[in-house]
Amino acid sequence: MKLASLKSGRDGHLVVVSNDLAWYADASHLVPTMQAALDDWDRMAPYLEVLARDLEHAAIPRERFHEHDAAAPLPRAYQWADGSAYVNHVELVRKARGAELPESFWTDPLMYQGGSDDMLGARDPISLKDEAWGCDLEAEIVVVTGDVPQGVTPEEARGYIRLVGLVNDVSLRNLIPDELAKGFGFVQSKPASAFSPVFVTPDALGDYWKDGKLHRKLLVDLNGQPFGRAVASDDCTFDFGVLIAHLAKTRRVRAGSIIGSGTVSNRDSDGGPGRPVRDGGLGYSCIAEVRMVEKITTGEMKTPFLKHGDTVRIDVHDHREHTIFGAIEQTVQVG
Amino acid sequence: MKLASLKSGRDGHLVVVSNDLAWYADASHLVPTMQAALDDWDRMAPYLEVLARDLEHAAIPRERFHEHDAAAPLPRAYQWADGSAYVNHVELVRKARGAELPESFWTDPLMYQGGSDDMLGARDPISLKDEAWGCDLEAEIVVVTGDVPQGVTPEEARGYIRLVGLVNDVSLRNLIPDELAKGFGFVQSKPASAFSPVFVTPDALGDYWKDGKLHRKLLVDLNGQPFGRAVASDDCTFDFGVLIAHLAKTRRVRAGSIIGSGTVSNRDSDGGPGRPVRDGGLGYSCIAEVRMVEKITTGEMKTPFLKHGDTVRIDVHDHREHTIFGAIEQTVQVG
Repeated sequence: MKLASLKSGRDGHLVVVSNDLAWYADASHLVPTMQAALDDWDRMAPYLEVLARDLEHAAIPRERFHEHDAAAPLPRAYQWADGSAYVNHVELVRKARGAELPESFWTDPLMYQGGSDDMLGARDPISLKDEAWGCDLEAEIVVVTGDVPQGVTPEEARGYIRLVGLVNDVSLRNLIPDELAKGFGFVQSKPASAFSPVFVTPDALGDYWKDGKLHRKLLVDLNGQPFGRAVASDDCTFDFGVLIAHLAKTRRVRAGSIIGSGTVSNRDSDGGPGRPVRDGGLGYSCIAEVRMVEKITTGEMKTPFLKHGDTVRIDVHDHREHTIFGAIEQTVQVG
Repeated sequence: MKLASLKSGRDGHLVVVSNDLAWYADASHLVPTMQAALDDWDRMAPYLEVLARDLEHAAIPRERFHEHDAAAPLPRAYQWADGSAYVNHVELVRKARGAELPESFWTDPLMYQGGSDDMLGARDPISLKDEAWGCDLEAEIVVVTGDVPQGVTPEEARGYIRLVGLVNDVSLRNLIPDELAKGFGFVQSKPASAFSPVFVTPDALGDYWKDGKLHRKLLVDLNGQPFGRAVASDDCTFDFGVLIAHLAKTRRVRAGSIIGSGTVSNRDSDGGPGRPVRDGGLGYSCIAEVRMVEKITTGEMKTPFLKHGDTVRIDVHDHREHTIFGAIEQTVQVG
């Protein structure tokens, strides 16, 4: 089943979307919002599944689905906690500034609590006041949980994953060093994130969803050029079960919590840092990473951070090259 | 005007509470929840004010208000961002571990993004799985904002404060060093926080609310003994206008965001670290602080962190010694 929130008020209104993302059927007569569906998932999901099946069979009134009409599936959420499952990414960033990766990073996930009061739709602009802040994309996989009890195991935690989607976790790189030095995590350096037009239930992903990981390539384009083609299930040290269990160690996690994978990142086939897509590599899911590789290989960071008018596109295809979640496609607007 | 959420479902149901906290009138026929009231504040607040006036005059049906029936005013919120306005507290904690306070801490507020999917009511227990985690209270003032535009000044930001209340920002001290070392802020070391039974509009606080600060003593009791008597407006380096403006530098802040002051902390009258209440001092709003003072003065931390059965009480009185927000009163339950 695929679900979306069409733009309407603060929370959008819930629709069921066809597998090919061409059509939708209003679901708000069953349950008004995505959060309300998650709050009462066991009771509501079967009704929504029936609606989704009827939509697939064109057995009910349906409307054309336009990705630009979609708000973030949860236009505001009660929790956004972003992990760093791709330790390759963390290692690269550290290597570029000459810092060792602590051994514990391979067993104890990094995670930060993000702001969740204002989530962007897939076509909303990245509104940036100052280019000097060093605006970057971060292409990631996310899951949305049901009510997770405190102290769940990673295996149990996987069973609480209700939906899967994509995020562009916008980051202001030049504000990060000062905030990290303060030790209290990110506040100013993580403005609003944007989410894929639809979120998808794990069962609807079939073989693409296994062991708490998404087994597909994450397609990242920058200004219309292929920028990243990393496989989300490769070099993924912590599956979503581990990330959720990490968050739930000392407290329960409530329905509608969004958990992020961190920037998707693959090593090169020779084990070294990734090469650009144009050089036959798998590329990058954020600009910081290519800058790190540039620094390591040439001594100089060349690729600039995002500027006014730049476009970012994040998508995942099925084996027929059809979009699964719809694409995040954002333009940077400065001022 | 004083507002509370009586326990009911995930979001409670909104009531207006009399100034003396003895009575309430149901407000859910006007607007069902506290969040819904904040979402539409300019339109709904006048209706709620009329209800509050009628309740004060006993002109409408009313029921006895019991603090233990209150959920957190926002049982789940879209944002919880906690500052560190009392730099004295930060300096003490650092001094005890031999670290200097960076000069910038006096001008650039520390702030962390907290989990907001699960907020405790004032009488809910502190549920702790392991005493070895070093459970501590942190008594703080909080405000709830309306929709705050990006880039507001501190002066403008004060105008977006809709409600004022209290929080016990429960902290797991022995998990903090490892999380701070990772640099990504608090995830496991900050379980669910508890809030005062009622939140109060700034105008209803009269002279007690001035310049974005609460001009009253914060009364903290531990196991029935006075533990903290700090004045919330003293040694408060950053008023709530500054804290909100800090959060809103790179993004807008949406209605219902809860902003915390950080642990309230006063210097001693001689400028040194505070003395215990029993020695004529103003005491402490968290256990970590008395342990730091013990370490500085005697070389040894003596006061233990919270154990099973310990009780914490946080309250603020008016000049007639009547409670303003109702009291947070929690018992620690281990296991």
